[in-house]
Amino acid sequence: MAEQNLENIDLEQYPHINKGLAGIVAFSTTKSFIDGQTGDLIYAGYHIDTLAENATFEEVCFLLWNDRLPNQEELDELHNKLRSERQLPEPVIEYIKNTRKDAEPMAVLRTAVSMLADFQDDSNDTNHAIAVTAQIPTIIAAFDRVRNGKEVVSPLDEGSTAFNFLYMLNGEKPGQAAEKTMNLCLVLHAEHGMNASTFTCRTICATESDMFSAVTGAIGALKGPLHGGANTAVMNMLLNLKEQGENADPVKFTKEKLNKKEKMMGFGHRVYKTFDPRAVHLRKMSKELSEETGHEYLYEWSEAMVKTMKEEKNIDPNVDFFSASVYYSIGIQPDLYTCIFTMSRISGWTAHFFEQKANNRLIRPRALYVGEKNLDWVPVEDR
Amino acid sequence: MAEQNLENIDLEQYPHINKGLAGIVAFSTTKSFIDGQTGDLIYAGYHIDTLAENATFEEVCFLLWNDRLPNQEELDELHNKLRSERQLPEPVIEYIKNTRKDAEPMAVLRTAVSMLADFQDDSNDTNHAIAVTAQIPTIIAAFDRVRNGKEVVSPLDEGSTAFNFLYMLNGEKPGQAAEKTMNLCLVLHAEHGMNASTFTCRTICATESDMFSAVTGAIGALKGPLHGGANTAVMNMLLNLKEQGENADPVKFTKEKLNKKEKMMGFGHRVYKTFDPRAVHLRKMSKELSEETGHEYLYEWSEAMVKTMKEEKNIDPNVDFFSASVYYSIGIQPDLYTCIFTMSRISGWTAHFFEQKANNRLIRPRALYVGEKNLDWVPVEDR
Repeated sequence: MAEQNLENIDLEQYPHINKGLAGIVAFSTTKSFIDGQTGDLIYAGYHIDTLAENATFEEVCFLLWNDRLPNQEELDELHNKLRSERQLPEPVIEYIKNTRKDAEPMAVLRTAVSMLADFQDDSNDTNHAIAVTAQIPTIIAAFDRVRNGKEVVSPLDEGSTAFNFLYMLNGEKPGQAAEKTMNLCLVLHAEHGMNASTFTCRTICATESDMFSAVTGAIGALKGPLHGGANTAVMNMLLNLKEQGENADPVKFTKEKLNKKEKMMGFGHRVYKTFDPRAVHLRKMSKELSEETGHEYLYEWSEAMVKTMKEEKNIDPNVDFFSASVYYSIGIQPDLYTCIFTMSRISGWTAHFFEQKANNRLIRPRALYVGEKNLDWVPVEDR
Repeated sequence: MAEQNLENIDLEQYPHINKGLAGIVAFSTTKSFIDGQTGDLIYAGYHIDTLAENATFEEVCFLLWNDRLPNQEELDELHNKLRSERQLPEPVIEYIKNTRKDAEPMAVLRTAVSMLADFQDDSNDTNHAIAVTAQIPTIIAAFDRVRNGKEVVSPLDEGSTAFNFLYMLNGEKPGQAAEKTMNLCLVLHAEHGMNASTFTCRTICATESDMFSAVTGAIGALKGPLHGGANTAVMNMLLNLKEQGENADPVKFTKEKLNKKEKMMGFGHRVYKTFDPRAVHLRKMSKELSEETGHEYLYEWSEAMVKTMKEEKNIDPNVDFFSASVYYSIGIQPDLYTCIFTMSRISGWTAHFFEQKANNRLIRPRALYVGEKNLDWVPVEDR
């Protein structure tokens, strides 16, 4: 059927509504492939297991933006550009210092990223992607320090994204193990098909709006508890259990939640019908870190919950479940977890922005009107 | 087909891609109905002609939020609440004063609206909708004055949204005719089905994110030249013609643009296949205003363009075409037009937020992966 006919089809005759757009194919992409049945995830040709084992976050950025891995010269150039863009414009720092200390970190990140747009001197999308990727970690670390009454730590002009972020957050240079953990988290969260925030990014891009608009919208979508907000919710669930002290029993806790029909955060996924391949790597990391940092109980509880959920509901954990205990073990406050997710996913969003712009069409589905049609005006005094 | 099957369908076997989601029905709504064939537009039961003739913007807000018109007491209460929320938090004013004077007004509006979230003391969506509706005009007027080197004018605690906005923008109270014009523009732009910004708003809401995230994303979408940015582009087109001085010929200008396959801004619409019903009212207003304000040429050129486009391409003007000359005639700078659109459309966005939240489902279409799948890792030194 021709498109203009579809636009004007009589919906009252064809009222099929697909509320979540499930199964509707809106794009073609070279950015990632997910096999929900086998639990495979590929970024631009490379399996997530390959990338988890070998890649730096910066290599993943280059890969997602260019559909190939960089050579040494290209990688060095990207590192240099990212490092040179880490500083925030002064008004952004001022906002972070002057807003409410109890503001939501994701809301502050959304505002600060939006504000970056005012200080761009060109309209080059590649430069914008590098700038926003470089500055998001600075924003997150700066707000976390300000709200905790600490001095803001300026970014280094050396080191990886992971290294520099942990330095700015903690005020001291991280060890190799912490940097490696942080880097792996950034690699694992970088890209994941047509999730709600990536879709938001492409929808905004499709109006021919700019990259900062698209990324700001995506941050707003990722903030939601049904999307990126889930990892914070997982940690809060684990901390609730911890409050039960010696009586804490993860199996009983899980069963009680299921009996009360409450949602177990961090389980199930609209795409994966098996173990989320990212969760495999995070599980391993969670085990190692919780042993190293004396949070063994966190890992043990997590495994008990995974086992109980499998037995009771046949549902596997998703990426958010083990990332919560990983971030907790390296000392990051729970309400920052979705910000860390953003710091990684910015690479996928910007890659999808490039892809959308290169082959664009305005995105505009329809709604079925189910209200009245012929109401007469009644003056306010007669209502 | 069950939904989980749709999620995991083998796309390589079924590669139909609907790039713009044209004709896909994603929602049911009571907010507006558009008949693109007959050129009819209804907001929650009332025809746009009825509303254009009778309604204030505040009545339209209440109508869209509640699916009925307010009685006198309810309308008074809404007026009082809106008036009491017009003041901006101090850090928002500081940002507006301290950012670059040449920043894009829509970018500043996006950032300032995002920032409002930090200063909400409750999580009541109704209060948030009122706050953001009340504060958007203050943001727009404040930035326009700051960038023009003028003192910011504080909002009044009296008068309509239209009256107060023109007062803050110009520093003096508007006459009845200007207030009426502004009010009519706000009524006509308030709501328009599943356009890209409203869809963005609902997609963000569907992750269970907050109203400020959803509205900030919607502003980013509206900013695009294929969406709200078109009215500014129309005015720039008319001003380009004006630069030709005595040689300005709108018929020749239009034909030359068509010959060069350039886009005539403000014509055609994905939904309307006839005269946009909003353009009917704006056309009448443009005629009256251009006569009153000595810009007759603008109206005459516009009509000549409409006639030429109809003859040459059988395409009618859309809402953006005549709104450009209307705003110009009441002295608003062209790069503010999309902000004015936002000031109105906030009513529709927030109404759709309420509707989405009341009957929610995460919005997540799919993408067909067309890249490689089995690439082996090559160390950087060997690339």
